[in-house]
Amino acid sequence: MSDVSEELRLRCARVKLVVTDVDGVLTDDGMYYAESGEEIKRFNTRDGMGVARLREGGIETAIVTQETTEIVRRRAEKLGIAHLFQGERDKRARIEALAAELGLDLRDVAYIGDDVNDLEAIGVCGVSATVADGMPAVRAAVDYVCELPGGAGAFREFAELLLGARSMRQR
Amino acid sequence: MSDVSEELRLRCARVKLVVTDVDGVLTDDGMYYAESGEEIKRFNTRDGMGVARLREGGIETAIVTQETTEIVRRRAEKLGIAHLFQGERDKRARIEALAAELGLDLRDVAYIGDDVNDLEAIGVCGVSATVADGMPAVRAAVDYVCELPGGAGAFREFAELLLGARSMRQR
Amino acid sequence: MSDVSEELRLRCARVKLVVTDVDGVLTDDGMYYAESGEEIKRFNTRDGMGVARLREGGIETAIVTQETTEIVRRRAEKLGIAHLFQGERDKRARIEALAAELGLDLRDVAYIGDDVNDLEAIGVCGVSATVADGMPAVRAAVDYVCELPGGAGAFREFAELLLGARSMRQR
Amino acid sequence: MSDVSEELRLRCARVKLVVTDVDGVLTDDGMYYAESGEEIKRFNTRDGMGVARLREGGIETAIVTQETTEIVRRRAEKLGIAHLFQGERDKRARIEALAAELGLDLRDVAYIGDDVNDLEAIGVCGVSATVADGMPAVRAAVDYVCELPGGAGAFREFAELLLGARSMRQR
Repeated sequence: MSDVSEELRLRCARVKLVVTDVDGVLTDDGMYYAESGEEIKRFNTRDGMGVARLREGGIETAIVTQETTEIVRRRAEKLGIAHLFQGERDKRARIEALAAELGLDLRDVAYIGDDVNDLEAIGVCGVSATVADGMPAVRAAVDYVCELPGGAGAFREFAELLLGARSMRQR
Repeated sequence: MSDVSEELRLRCARVKLVVTDVDGVLTDDGMYYAESGEEIKRFNTRDGMGVARLREGGIETAIVTQETTEIVRRRAEKLGIAHLFQGERDKRARIEALAAELGLDLRDVAYIGDDVNDLEAIGVCGVSATVADGMPAVRAAVDYVCELPGGAGAFREFAELLLGARSMRQR
Repeated sequence: MSDVSEELRLRCARVKLVVTDVDGVLTDDGMYYAESGEEIKRFNTRDGMGVARLREGGIETAIVTQETTEIVRRRAEKLGIAHLFQGERDKRARIEALAAELGLDLRDVAYIGDDVNDLEAIGVCGVSATVADGMPAVRAAVDYVCELPGGAGAFREFAELLLGARSMRQR
Repeated sequence: MSDVSEELRLRCARVKLVVTDVDGVLTDDGMYYAESGEEIKRFNTRDGMGVARLREGGIETAIVTQETTEIVRRRAEKLGIAHLFQGERDKRARIEALAAELGLDLRDVAYIGDDVNDLEAIGVCGVSATVADGMPAVRAAVDYVCELPGGAGAFREFAELLLGARSMRQR
């Protein structure tokens, strides 16, 4: 946490919901296609632990993605993520609706995404992050650029940042 | 765009069609074989966004590859790429025919490939590129060597280069 | 072995059992999900050779993991690992029970893991290691941080360290 | 070729057969296991082109591996490799028998492998190589260590080295 400003740390400490994109964030940027029509995505075991640790720390996780696959439904189920929104073309509107439903201020919401279709969501959330290999326009727009690339633990890195800020506040 | 010459930028700005190889460009250089006979290829989600952004910017994408798989047919379909040519041993002839059919000068066509069987196509197109891990003979022949390797967003990088050049021209 | 202290080398030389985590150690940190419900893990051929070489050197290998999959059962079978414990939430208790059953002192047991749920096991074993991309809290707690990441030969690297220490002792 | 000694270049120029290991050389070091029992290996498209280019240059390719899978049989078939030997525990004996059968001196045979079970074969062949991520004992034993790791084009790199040496001789 040494390289995060005190101002950002304070914003991180109030986060109660983390919203994440899927492809390129929870997965590496790969889309695996098999000859039979099967699709495969590669998630990360350490990110999975991050979702569990956020929950223990009182922070919920939501998934908002433009794609719609059974793969993501199962991964969300495995990780116990109830807030799953697939096929979303307007991520910002979805996040605003979810925050309202949960009685959260948008300043209580953190967002992590990797591409230009995440820029609007990044603009409205209290804290924003991207993966080390995020698109240049996204890296330029967020509060925090992870040291790790998508699918290699970037979500976990962001989760630990939020948890660390919260535990500092509680001391 | 800072490290691209003004001359190359002008050539990029007139591109109306991008022709791409598949294996090693749209995919990492992997050929995944399963015991059952299944084959798998790994594409890139950010490259997919690149095809969409090119289209919005008025630039079409075509695929010309020596292999023939159902995998590539489905990926092209997903990305809305109508110009799909598989099993092509003479890529240059195919590109010349396609340009003629679309009423394009070859100077309106950009090409990205990674191996020695791409050299002839590279030689005739207006702008040429390869991936960071392209074969040495190809890296030596092209106008632009991407910073990213095949399957890791190199196609997207090239797409943004073309779109950036076009938007500069329009100002 | 040049960068390992004499004290650690002596501890390595008495090891008779290596206990390893699976996800993120024997595999890269990927969890591959297919649309059909299929799951895939990526092991490492050189790690497999490491298990064989440990056995020839008189050191047994055990797997202790929180997950439960048929994948790991088959990999263990392929490598001839008889001590396989899946679905373990208390890894430390399992290792203590196994050591007792085999008549081993915990100082005869080495452990390699990558995440915070491995910290208790790391605390009780005679020698501990993690992968190059292990979580920071784990890297700070172990005796040895491998140069190689999980799934890329880190287990083999640790195995060779143990075998090297043993062979030095025997001279 | 600049960093290869004249003596090694002369040895490379007489090679008529390249023998290659599979796991960790033609593939990355991954062994992909699926929950259903399916196994997957990741080959490299540029290595495939290497086999074709060797053939055009008058150099045959043989595969000698300890494992036995349908995956490797199909990959060999795809690449037109007739000399396929799976389940080989004594690689050196197999190579000696193959050379005799083809009427070749062992100095006409090149070998590329990555692990300690390749050391005997490395010891008898005219030219030997390993991948960038080969085991230390193998890197220490071979004539040439590729800049590229297994499954990322190392075989192709070795093939181009042999072809380059041959074309120099023919001038």
